[in-house]
Amino acid sequence: MTPHTPVGRPLRPQGKLLQEDARRHHRSLLLQQLFREGPASRADLARASGLTRVTVSDLVGEMLADGFVSELGAPAESRVGKPPTLVGLAADSHHIIGLDLSETDRMSGAVVNLAGTVVARHEVHVDGAVGEQAVELVQRLAAELVAMTDRPVLGIGVGSPGVVDTLGTVIDAPNLAWTDTPLAARLAEAFELPVFVANDANTAVLGEHTFGESGDGGLMVLRVGTGVGAGFVLGGSLLHGHLGAAGEIGHVVVDPSGETCACGRTGCLETLLSAPTLRRSVAEPGVDGPSVLADVGTRLGEVLAPVVAALNLHEIVLSGPAELLDGPLLDAADRTIRERTMPISSTGLAVRTSKLGEDVVVVGAVVLVLAGELGVS
Amino acid sequence: MTPHTPVGRPLRPQGKLLQEDARRHHRSLLLQQLFREGPASRADLARASGLTRVTVSDLVGEMLADGFVSELGAPAESRVGKPPTLVGLAADSHHIIGLDLSETDRMSGAVVNLAGTVVARHEVHVDGAVGEQAVELVQRLAAELVAMTDRPVLGIGVGSPGVVDTLGTVIDAPNLAWTDTPLAARLAEAFELPVFVANDANTAVLGEHTFGESGDGGLMVLRVGTGVGAGFVLGGSLLHGHLGAAGEIGHVVVDPSGETCACGRTGCLETLLSAPTLRRSVAEPGVDGPSVLADVGTRLGEVLAPVVAALNLHEIVLSGPAELLDGPLLDAADRTIRERTMPISSTGLAVRTSKLGEDVVVVGAVVLVLAGELGVS
Ligand SMILES: [Zn+2]
Ligand SMILES: [Zn+2]
Repeated sequence: MTPHTPVGRPLRPQGKLLQEDARRHHRSLLLQQLFREGPASRADLARASGLTRVTVSDLVGEMLADGFVSELGAPAESRVGKPPTLVGLAADSHHIIGLDLSETDRMSGAVVNLAGTVVARHEVHVDGAVGEQAVELVQRLAAELVAMTDRPVLGIGVGSPGVVDTLGTVIDAPNLAWTDTPLAARLAEAFELPVFVANDANTAVLGEHTFGESGDGGLMVLRVGTGVGAGFVLGGSLLHGHLGAAGEIGHVVVDPSGETCACGRTGCLETLLSAPTLRRSVAEPGVDGPSVLADVGTRLGEVLAPVVAALNLHEIVLSGPAELLDGPLLDAADRTIRERTMPISSTGLAVRTSKLGEDVVVVGAVVLVLAGELGVS
Repeated sequence: MTPHTPVGRPLRPQGKLLQEDARRHHRSLLLQQLFREGPASRADLARASGLTRVTVSDLVGEMLADGFVSELGAPAESRVGKPPTLVGLAADSHHIIGLDLSETDRMSGAVVNLAGTVVARHEVHVDGAVGEQAVELVQRLAAELVAMTDRPVLGIGVGSPGVVDTLGTVIDAPNLAWTDTPLAARLAEAFELPVFVANDANTAVLGEHTFGESGDGGLMVLRVGTGVGAGFVLGGSLLHGHLGAAGEIGHVVVDPSGETCACGRTGCLETLLSAPTLRRSVAEPGVDGPSVLADVGTRLGEVLAPVVAALNLHEIVLSGPAELLDGPLLDAADRTIRERTMPISSTGLAVRTSKLGEDVVVVGAVVLVLAGELGVS
């Protein structure tokens, strides 16, 4: 490429500089600071954000009026002169609805506050609902949850199985028989609220990253349910991949002479590792459960070793039935990764189960709304 | 995490907003536009950057004075009214020195202009130089190259073997017997120029991304030389990994009963795929070269399949001896990746050799300087 040959790639951060975006962006900076670091004085916020104190005071005034922040009084250690007033995120000023559609038998959801705390729950049984019926079921679940809070609802976030595009249309979710189903648009129309939909493994990794005590060194969440899929946060950002299909690690062939997979190919990781298969395997008469689980863990470690070496990941989090994943399976995967990669690739790595348990998808769906509406994550 | 629990993570883009950084950032926006899209009028630049026309005129005036841009006259198709004057990047206003230290027998370098065009080359034989002697050899190579241009030198970029930290200190490069060698600091002191040093696989992927007609969908460059290593550009950014060790895919175990590797373990990918091993394998008497290369390609594809599925990569570029890599090896790797991943993971994927050939590391080293000094990449 010479500089006289246009190559059609867009400029990167130009939008941020447009006058009309600046205020919103500055507001996000302050909210992000309060969200991550806790209450601060206006002077602290000016220092941390690089904004002038006049701008900070102005924006804080606006957010006090909106209710997103509240004044908390002075910190105890302030002794000299007039103590500065602290402002903090008002966690229950608004609520968010988070939905998890990734389980086979039920759809679950929660009312969650701005700090990621679940304040109410509800679930509905799927009972074989597919297509339009399944969409209506999602609407019913969301309506019940909206009715469970008396706070303004900031938006609805959804973790859906299958491939989901950036507009929240579910391109393909075989279990629910959804094809090009505009789920976000349908819910937005029904509730007149901002709606964000993403793949459940992607919402899970966002939930773990934001609320699961994770760092920015590279996080993979492996969801083990009816299917097997992964989500990645690298350098602080969700990885989408070239065609939005990052994380499809469940359909890597691990045993070319293995069982036929739901995808039509043979010996995918999912044919060994899905929750139903694991349950069946350990329940077979005469089988030694722990050694079966360890064998699967070894195969999982073999698939993950190249990924760990390539990305120098900080954390791999297994999310799914703890009674199957935590123990021999996780231990064997961890050991195999270390045997098959250089120490520099794996010494900094932690392999663990999610601290958020089954809530990880719902809480991650809430992060979609926090990020989309407030610029906070 | 609640918003009242500090978690010690830094705020993200705050630095950009500081008053003193704004001018430099705005200048980078304009240079980036000219670098990527070619010549433009001041009005075009204002539209594309979101900056006011007054700010753009002011910054363009400054860059005309510095020589980084020049006026090119009006475009041919302008007919009505006074035609606007175009400004373009002045590719030969400044030159950059790029060095490639990744080959066993020699160190090579080039004088490169701002458009990535090589204008002069030089190389020195290593002849077993290690440690301090090798540092002095790098200095001699750089001095020769600096003497080969009469333009102001913007900086020196270096692609080095081994692990390199963000300050340009080579933590460990066994071939050159460098341990914690402050290469960037040494060169900066000797030449009084900005110096940037990175691992050769990382410089290669930057070179391919910026000058190799690559997109932003996820690029991996696999360097095959004395060793085997990879670099990744994901979402437009170089991937560093948790401990700066992303890309160490050469030391993933592919054959636990294989040969002993330089790293002390058994059956790493590098024991099959390094350039010396490949040369030895195809030269053995009675051996069918193409089928040997295809076998290695299959093993490579098995290692890459989980990486492709995880990242949904757009491009995998093999960089190294074309007579070994291009053909049966590349074809077998490509086929194996497709057999072992879902169509959605691999349909958008291209597996190819580098269009920049052996220059990819030198040109990538130049990108380090362009990005560091001008904010352009
Ligand atoms: Zn499959
Ligand atoms: Zn090795």
